[in-house]
Amino acid sequence: MSRQAIEAAAARFAPHEGAFLRRTPLWKLPGAALGVACAEVWLKLEHLQASGSFKARGMLNRLLANPIPASGVVVASGGNAGIATAAAARRLGVRCEVFVPTVCSPAKQAKLRELGAHVVVGGDAYAQALDASMERQRRTGALVTHAYDQPEVVAGAGTLAREIDQDGGRPDSVLVSVGGGGLIAGIASWFEREARVVALEPELAPTLHAARRAGAPVDVAVSGVAADSLGARRIGAIAWEVTQAHVADSLLLPDAAIREAQLTLWKDFKLSVEPAAALGLAALQSGAYRPAADERVCLVVCGANLDPASLS
Amino acid sequence: MSRQAIEAAAARFAPHEGAFLRRTPLWKLPGAALGVACAEVWLKLEHLQASGSFKARGMLNRLLANPIPASGVVVASGGNAGIATAAAARRLGVRCEVFVPTVCSPAKQAKLRELGAHVVVGGDAYAQALDASMERQRRTGALVTHAYDQPEVVAGAGTLAREIDQDGGRPDSVLVSVGGGGLIAGIASWFEREARVVALEPELAPTLHAARRAGAPVDVAVSGVAADSLGARRIGAIAWEVTQAHVADSLLLPDAAIREAQLTLWKDFKLSVEPAAALGLAALQSGAYRPAADERVCLVVCGANLDPASLS
Ligand SMILES: Cc1ncc(COP(=O)(O)O)c(C=O)c1O
Ligand SMILES: Cc1ncc(COP(=O)(O)O)c(C=O)c1O
Repeated sequence: MSRQAIEAAAARFAPHEGAFLRRTPLWKLPGAALGVACAEVWLKLEHLQASGSFKARGMLNRLLANPIPASGVVVASGGNAGIATAAAARRLGVRCEVFVPTVCSPAKQAKLRELGAHVVVGGDAYAQALDASMERQRRTGALVTHAYDQPEVVAGAGTLAREIDQDGGRPDSVLVSVGGGGLIAGIASWFEREARVVALEPELAPTLHAARRAGAPVDVAVSGVAADSLGARRIGAIAWEVTQAHVADSLLLPDAAIREAQLTLWKDFKLSVEPAAALGLAALQSGAYRPAADERVCLVVCGANLDPASLS
Repeated sequence: MSRQAIEAAAARFAPHEGAFLRRTPLWKLPGAALGVACAEVWLKLEHLQASGSFKARGMLNRLLANPIPASGVVVASGGNAGIATAAAARRLGVRCEVFVPTVCSPAKQAKLRELGAHVVVGGDAYAQALDASMERQRRTGALVTHAYDQPEVVAGAGTLAREIDQDGGRPDSVLVSVGGGGLIAGIASWFEREARVVALEPELAPTLHAARRAGAPVDVAVSGVAADSLGARRIGAIAWEVTQAHVADSLLLPDAAIREAQLTLWKDFKLSVEPAAALGLAALQSGAYRPAADERVCLVVCGANLDPASLS
């Protein structure tokens, strides 16, 4: 993974900027505005991205960088990766099949269908939906998108860091939520060691943290408030390599702190974000991450796929 | 009302910027992103302002520009003006009394109390709460804040236009929701005729529109989805004067268009805003306002005081 790959993704995006992909706002606040003892907190409002999360970047890049057969694209995911794949496929006018397990809520299935995707429901667990999607791919030759462990997906996510750099300059640190690690791999590949990139995970979904303890990627049990988005079972191979090179800090956060931060973002800042997008503020509010007095900390507010009623 | 008064307000705000008052993001999108046939749509995300609406600007300016007696400040409003007065008073450490009618929901009363305000409930209608607040003011000598018809309140709102100018340059047009008219008076006083300022009102709360028909401010009946925020009964004297000088267009919008735009802002842009903040998009979506092909239109997204469950 390299800056060059991220620049290539950004160049591919040019004809789609605005009409589909969005340059999301970077909101700079003094630390005091969030009750944090540091100079500045920057909020990259990436939950305002098309499809409601940063995943649109990776999926669009994956689709633009490869020839797409008539059978279209296929993905196994009822979450943000599935939604982003469906949205990107619709943008490009290609067929999209999304495989989801039976536990995938009717609301999510409806959302995927609204985006024009063919939804295939089957199996009790994600693993079975994944198997079915692979089986299908072998038959049709469709292009597969993976939620986090493909170079184009990581490079696409990296364009988010490039935007921060262009719009706001270099922050001292960037706090990033980690599931399978595609997002942090993209961001750390952009900043390398020029900003301190900090990995944040729920205690109940610790893929990177567990890999570090074990010395290599391992499967973990996942649950908790952010499992919907951060519930990958294992850190991706690309993310493992990039984070070993560029990410020193890997912090765990309890669900209560994540939920509290999510509610603060709504009550005090009127940002409707999902739990996965609240880990940065949770790390600051709980003291898990303590910035220096003169530090400019950037939080990646990464997703908004939530039922707004959950904020009432 | 003059630019000078707005500059004076901005100067007063300096020590409070960030810690209380926020420089809210200006999000520029190509018109195509919103399905509008114009060059650019700018969203001034003022619903992210402290207290959840632009009213924080006017109320803080009112409090900063006047000596505040030990009896503190008093306001009659269960809506954004009351919340903003309470928040500004808390920021300055002064006593705040808010008079609300019995119809004011327990949730709103709780919110005001959370902000440290003394809530006085009485009377069936707003007019009675207002009478009670005036009676109280005569006894205590407290400083009164008015929701829209005081010069400091209008000048405070004008700082929003100054920010647009500083951060994004001059738009061609600015679409503004009108209740009592404090917001549009501040914005039109800043831009004067250098940007086309367009007044938007719900058909069911047409204070400016009715005044224009009558040739002078008149009382109107108010109801509908945005009555909570745009339910002033009569356009303010300051707003009447300023809009007669600087605002050519006064458009009415049906509730259905307002509600549809509110849902679009949530579904497609993940912005949780109240109906009053959706009139700009409603005007574009419904064709009530048709920008030129090369136009840069700025929408003032002015408030976020809603129950998020209403977006589900
Ligand atoms: C909102 C949100 N944040 C963070 C993540 C984690 O991204 P990654 O799996 O690339 O680490 C996801 C993954 O779906 C997500 O949807
Ligand atoms: C969110 C919101 N928008 C617009 C308005 C209208 O402002 P004005 O009464 O100054 O016209 C209000 C007034 O309360 C409001 O709360």
